Amino acid sequence: MKLDARQLKEFDDQGYLFLPSCFSDEEVAALRSEAEAIYKTDRQEVWRESTGAPRTAFAAHTYNEAFRLLSCHPRLVEPLRQLFGEDVYVHQFKINAKAAFEGAVWQWHQDYGTWARDDGMPEPRAMNIAVFLDEVMPINGPLMFIPKSHKAGTLEAGHDTATTSYPLWTLDNDTVAKLVRDAEPGDGSPGIVAPTGKPGSVLMFHGNLVHASPPNMTPYPRKIVYLTLCAVSNHITQFNRPEWIAHRDFTPITPVADDALMQYARSYLVAAE
Amino acid sequence: MKLDARQLKEFDDQGYLFLPSCFSDEEVAALRSEAEAIYKTDRQEVWRESTGAPRTAFAAHTYNEAFRLLSCHPRLVEPLRQLFGEDVYVHQFKINAKAAFEGAVWQWHQDYGTWARDDGMPEPRAMNIAVFLDEVMPINGPLMFIPKSHKAGTLEAGHDTATTSYPLWTLDNDTVAKLVRDAEPGDGSPGIVAPTGKPGSVLMFHGNLVHASPPNMTPYPRKIVYLTLCAVSNHITQFNRPEWIAHRDFTPITPVADDALMQYARSYLVAAE
Repeated sequence: MKLDARQLKEFDDQGYLFLPSCFSDEEVAALRSEAEAIYKTDRQEVWRESTGAPRTAFAAHTYNEAFRLLSCHPRLVEPLRQLFGEDVYVHQFKINAKAAFEGAVWQWHQDYGTWARDDGMPEPRAMNIAVFLDEVMPINGPLMFIPKSHKAGTLEAGHDTATTSYPLWTLDNDTVAKLVRDAEPGDGSPGIVAPTGKPGSVLMFHGNLVHASPPNMTPYPRKIVYLTLCAVSNHITQFNRPEWIAHRDFTPITPVADDALMQYARSYLVAAE
Repeated sequence: MKLDARQLKEFDDQGYLFLPSCFSDEEVAALRSEAEAIYKTDRQEVWRESTGAPRTAFAAHTYNEAFRLLSCHPRLVEPLRQLFGEDVYVHQFKINAKAAFEGAVWQWHQDYGTWARDDGMPEPRAMNIAVFLDEVMPINGPLMFIPKSHKAGTLEAGHDTATTSYPLWTLDNDTVAKLVRDAEPGDGSPGIVAPTGKPGSVLMFHGNLVHASPPNMTPYPRKIVYLTLCAVSNHITQFNRPEWIAHRDFTPITPVADDALMQYARSYLVAAE
């Protein structure tokens, strides 16, 4: 899958691309079921909210076949090879739960802020690809983006270790307010977007795009996979975080066949019967 | 202003009515400006979030002319006289701030749960009318309703004095999940609605309608006035809360003229010049 000229321009202008229904119901059903099983395990890679509900599971692509196939899926890998003009490797792999009733906020931040400060990543030549495992609605804690904020560079941030169970380099309110004002399109709409859609939809966003997400107060879970792909020549240089949070294997990804995940999902469904 | 047959049926079925642009920009501008001034005062009636940001201001209709006119406005009072078939009085008057960046959650609850348990109100023959002072958007902490939940009666609740600065009788997750399932229309939409709209829009909702609101993580404030009108014959019987929270003056409201708030707003704007 290649991005077309319109998509490339939109990504450059706005800092993100939304691709509805990028994966089929069949593919997503297998991933969702595997994610739920992983959240029930007691692994060190599964982090929890203060209530005990799952918050995020790291590195599932290293021990789960469905997520391994997703991490080298051509629909995700090829657009990033195209954008970076070189091979990519998996820097991070998370399945964020935003569990029904329990999923807490992620404060305003830039992903690259963490990768630069914690991992010594040289340039913002890495980005997150969000794959929706559940329907994302306005009410169940969608991602909120400040369009164009990726053009502001890497902003000063404070290390928030208090608000939630996941330490994050977060931006102050004045900075966020200014970026939001600058992003207002001028027609009365706000300078914040919150893309929503069916399971299987995909959001690709620049490492410096400022984003946040509210808590999930509803009974509708909102699981999203975040696959972080980094240009191979831009690999991290500091190893402060565990290997299963910030990977140290910089081997270029060889994409699997486009139908590999679907084939797996079918065999999986057969096995489950 | 009278509700028509369609509106009466919708209210009975769904438990709420949304009336976009019920007040003009001019009327709302005066109310908004007065609300901002009130939040800056040090009165006991102004309650704050743990951060110090305003959370709610009580009883402004007793000391502020613009809000006094709103509390007896025919566009709000007449529909409720019509629904209850008798005169009404002001049980409570709040201006909820849901301040930019600071406004915290209101957990799932029924208003009548508090009025019954704390104030000894005999029946759910009182309801809240929300008047939007700012634009309410999906991103800045809108009210979320569970349609039809007003038909479930008054549900068991726990007294939450920990989550936020405002003590509230809140429902447990299993109860909320069941009500939401029951409210799903069957077309794939969720069993939760979050009406949004311009300043001046009005939401009337049954005292037993289950609702909540998420925090406001955006720079866009979301001020809403909640006027609680109660049927005079249904007045409260216990006086546990201060008079400025749960009023003890059961005098029937005499509505002002429909243009009274507009006339006030005009004189106010002239005075400000």
